[in-house]
Amino acid sequence: MNSATKPVIVLVRPQLGQNIGKAARAMLNFGLTEMRLVTPRDGWPNPDAGPAASGADVVLEQATVFDSVENAVADCSTIFASTVRRRDLVMPVVGPQEMADRIAASTARSAILFGPERSGLETEDVALANAIVTVPINPEFGSLNLAQAVILLAYEWSKKSALAQPTAKDLEPPAPHGELDGLISQLDTELVAKGYFHPPSRTQATRNTIRTIFTKTGWSSREVKAIRGIIRALVGTTREHG
Amino acid sequence: MNSATKPVIVLVRPQLGQNIGKAARAMLNFGLTEMRLVTPRDGWPNPDAGPAASGADVVLEQATVFDSVENAVADCSTIFASTVRRRDLVMPVVGPQEMADRIAASTARSAILFGPERSGLETEDVALANAIVTVPINPEFGSLNLAQAVILLAYEWSKKSALAQPTAKDLEPPAPHGELDGLISQLDTELVAKGYFHPPSRTQATRNTIRTIFTKTGWSSREVKAIRGIIRALVGTTREHG
Repeated sequence: MNSATKPVIVLVRPQLGQNIGKAARAMLNFGLTEMRLVTPRDGWPNPDAGPAASGADVVLEQATVFDSVENAVADCSTIFASTVRRRDLVMPVVGPQEMADRIAASTARSAILFGPERSGLETEDVALANAIVTVPINPEFGSLNLAQAVILLAYEWSKKSALAQPTAKDLEPPAPHGELDGLISQLDTELVAKGYFHPPSRTQATRNTIRTIFTKTGWSSREVKAIRGIIRALVGTTREHG
Repeated sequence: MNSATKPVIVLVRPQLGQNIGKAARAMLNFGLTEMRLVTPRDGWPNPDAGPAASGADVVLEQATVFDSVENAVADCSTIFASTVRRRDLVMPVVGPQEMADRIAASTARSAILFGPERSGLETEDVALANAIVTVPINPEFGSLNLAQAVILLAYEWSKKSALAQPTAKDLEPPAPHGELDGLISQLDTELVAKGYFHPPSRTQATRNTIRTIFTKTGWSSREVKAIRGIIRALVGTTREHG
């Protein structure tokens, strides 16, 4: 992944240092490192930011301060404004996934703007963006704070990056059919010995059920071996250890 | 959407009331309302939870307290443990999207387990789950707090919620966890009686393996009953018919 495709996170007029720190932590969790601050209310650096960053100090140390949103995004080609839909602006509204797709498709720098904690982005800020990005939330309870909005968009971006999702290949593969057959035969032999299949007219149906039950497990070779050991233990005489 | 497809959020031994409140807020943002608490450190209700919930009081008011993880998930068929990959357990590891797919595909109740803030889930907690769900994060800086983990998984689930439609399934749904627990307990009792667990130092690991093997089967209530009958037959004395 080219670092040019990593979006810049622009905090516009952030209020609390603590929230700047939390945003840095959210960013770094998903590999984003470039933070820009537009006229932070309490100046910069802010002593409250570090503790809230929980170790994401590298993001804070490299953060740069700008006097306007225009200057903060001057080198960026694709700009998203994180906000709810605006009645006062006619511009595209995308979800987090489409935002991530567009950032990944771009060869130039991208930026995501986040507004002040209390009031959000002003219309003039949003107007600088190419699109609004909105996280679809519960219409009856919309209450995303700054760090939460940052982490959700950073997470969605990260899916396009090298942070691959775990896949089923982490699993042990199911045992070859012959091994499962060995387990079922062993069980069948023991059940016959115990007089389990009764009445005879039901024996074939019961055998089919048992085969289905064990076939659906998806057990690996190791697991099939473990179950065979358990069957041996169950039918065996009590072992004395020591 | 059927409310049965909404996953239950289970906070296992949560420490700070503030974090319980933040988790409630994260849940409600994405339409999740059922929170269960397993032995919260500072008791319940906790006066610190409400202010941190930022209006998600309905989630806290309906939260229920359990004395064990087993009891908290007794009515759930599909259980995910939110944790990093565990070397001490061989079980499926999925990402948030696959988790959401599986929850949406299930007609029975699902649950997601989250561990205590400082230490995360214990191996015994994880062994109760069908799969581990891991958010792929920056390998050089993994620092998701409880509320962040909750919001990311709730967000990913919410993407499926609009699509989730009740479907007529030919397959029997997996048995509730309590029934599977009954099977595992029965087997454990019989194996103890046979002296299967040896040496003692390996007993807990072997128990975890057995739990994982049976949890992954996806057996229905009918199939769990059949296996319990088979275990009884294997340990019983030979039956004479006719």
